[in-house]
Amino acid sequence: MPKPVVFRGRDLLILDQTLLPAQERYVCLKSAQEVAGAIKKLQVRGAPWIGVVAGYGLAIEAQRLKDREICSGLQRAAKMLVSARPTAVNISWAVMRIMKRVRQEGVEPAGLRTAVRAEAEAIAREEKKRSMAIAKYGAKLVRENAKILTICNTGVLAGPGMGTALGIIYQAHLDGKKPFVYVCETRPLLQGARLTSWELMQAGVDFVLIVDSAAASVIEQCDMVLVGADRIAQNGDTANKVGTKMLAVLAKEAKRTFYVVAPSSTFDPEIKNGSEIVIEERDADEVLRCGKYRVKSKRVKVYNPAFDITPAQVITGFVTEVGVIRPPFKKNIRRLLHSVVA
Amino acid sequence: MPKPVVFRGRDLLILDQTLLPAQERYVCLKSAQEVAGAIKKLQVRGAPWIGVVAGYGLAIEAQRLKDREICSGLQRAAKMLVSARPTAVNISWAVMRIMKRVRQEGVEPAGLRTAVRAEAEAIAREEKKRSMAIAKYGAKLVRENAKILTICNTGVLAGPGMGTALGIIYQAHLDGKKPFVYVCETRPLLQGARLTSWELMQAGVDFVLIVDSAAASVIEQCDMVLVGADRIAQNGDTANKVGTKMLAVLAKEAKRTFYVVAPSSTFDPEIKNGSEIVIEERDADEVLRCGKYRVKSKRVKVYNPAFDITPAQVITGFVTEVGVIRPPFKKNIRRLLHSVVA
Repeated sequence: MPKPVVFRGRDLLILDQTLLPAQERYVCLKSAQEVAGAIKKLQVRGAPWIGVVAGYGLAIEAQRLKDREICSGLQRAAKMLVSARPTAVNISWAVMRIMKRVRQEGVEPAGLRTAVRAEAEAIAREEKKRSMAIAKYGAKLVRENAKILTICNTGVLAGPGMGTALGIIYQAHLDGKKPFVYVCETRPLLQGARLTSWELMQAGVDFVLIVDSAAASVIEQCDMVLVGADRIAQNGDTANKVGTKMLAVLAKEAKRTFYVVAPSSTFDPEIKNGSEIVIEERDADEVLRCGKYRVKSKRVKVYNPAFDITPAQVITGFVTEVGVIRPPFKKNIRRLLHSVVA
Repeated sequence: MPKPVVFRGRDLLILDQTLLPAQERYVCLKSAQEVAGAIKKLQVRGAPWIGVVAGYGLAIEAQRLKDREICSGLQRAAKMLVSARPTAVNISWAVMRIMKRVRQEGVEPAGLRTAVRAEAEAIAREEKKRSMAIAKYGAKLVRENAKILTICNTGVLAGPGMGTALGIIYQAHLDGKKPFVYVCETRPLLQGARLTSWELMQAGVDFVLIVDSAAASVIEQCDMVLVGADRIAQNGDTANKVGTKMLAVLAKEAKRTFYVVAPSSTFDPEIKNGSEIVIEERDADEVLRCGKYRVKSKRVKVYNPAFDITPAQVITGFVTEVGVIRPPFKKNIRRLLHSVVA
């Protein structure tokens, strides 16, 4: 399987996820602006990856900038990257971490460049470690021959290592548990149909593709639902790909477990609950365009939220790199965040 | 707005719904076999329409058949029409009604042809009346400026008159209540995006199009959910377009009313509950084909149920031509069926 992200110091290669699985083509990004553009266009996606890639964006920007503009240039780049996608917290988390290091380093250009690069590489390394730890904790929740429902893409294309929710499935597969996956196609951009199908086929994991609304038809045959996350509030309210809330409500009604799978970098200690999370609205054309049936009329108004908020009360638990967090979420999420800072 | 079905005695014109809204093109059907094919391909669809059209199919077949083969030919045609789509009961309901009349008429060919045509036209006339009565009863449930969530297409393209669920919205609109509609696009075949959008634009009803899984994001802003039905069991379990169960569970969780809108011809007195309803599975290609993103690999397995079963306990009521049926459903559905037979 081709690597989704290759950092080369002065530039960044990313596997263009908008073209997968039809074409495996790399894009070469040479500035923070190009990185922000690639994130916006979803050429690279997945909460952990876009955090890591934003870090690499600052690193290549530091290389690119002239000595005298390096401080102001990095500030500008940081702003641009954070605004590329508003919902996932991972970008601002990674950018803030690097900019804190920048402030600590002082203003000596060569030292700054080295520090930014080192911090970006550390973030990538740590996210990979978190992914592997998540997979191990999560796989313990998966029984033999488990049937698992998932949405969007949360695997190798979504984060370093094995990703998040799909990483658990890979680990269960490696452990010989023979998991079976129901993959929601994930309208409008079909990350499930295009990316998760592609990953699972290469990994040899058995699965079946469904339209998102057929989740209600299969939930009773499933043992559990595993999803990723883009931002998790103090109380456990979770922003993730539109459709996630639907799966959580269906799981609750059918009395199935529903786990959100995310590294600590996806928890936002700054916000109290889901009502404070900004939901990115994307172009109407993503919905209007569905093959030969493109609804041509410009008079058709579209509401196209890229994410939704799953209320904490329909979530069974959070699988993180330090273990599974169960209710009461507010207390236990706070404890998680303390433990990873410490 | 062009008429979706035009019966001309020896043939039947139908507006090809697979081409809408890009093209408004009629197909001319000249035999029961062609009618069954058009139903199978969804060139004509909607539970009430396919019942009516199956009746017309027998009428044109009776015209087409030679005198000596008319009885066996009608039997053959009846079988073919009933097997065109297994889930909606309306086809078998209409076909059985006409074949009962055939048996009563004896075997005189000219008399048979007249009788079949008369019965088919009566079914169409009665379904239109039912639609208008449903719209009136249903519109009473709709408050001023109501926000209504719906799926698939249940309007003029789905049945004579004003259809079913959309008919209620049209009536509320005509009554000056200014309803606002959230239209689920309805994957895989986009009846919501293509057909319901098209109808609502022509009717001047305000609406917004969403991907199906975004229903969870808008349910709290909605007052009610209105859907059609393909077959309703004795206990109220309801087969309808895949995605309907999802809407019902979301409505229950959000404490919103959820009405199934259907004429008495959609109630199946022969089956006890939803487990006895056959769910039509359609071609995988419907799911794999979604614009430029077509998942090309033949190795991707797909589960593509055209319908799902909404359990009676998440349904608020049934809007029928004799009024709104509320729980206990078993008793009250039986009463409905008695009243329409009487």
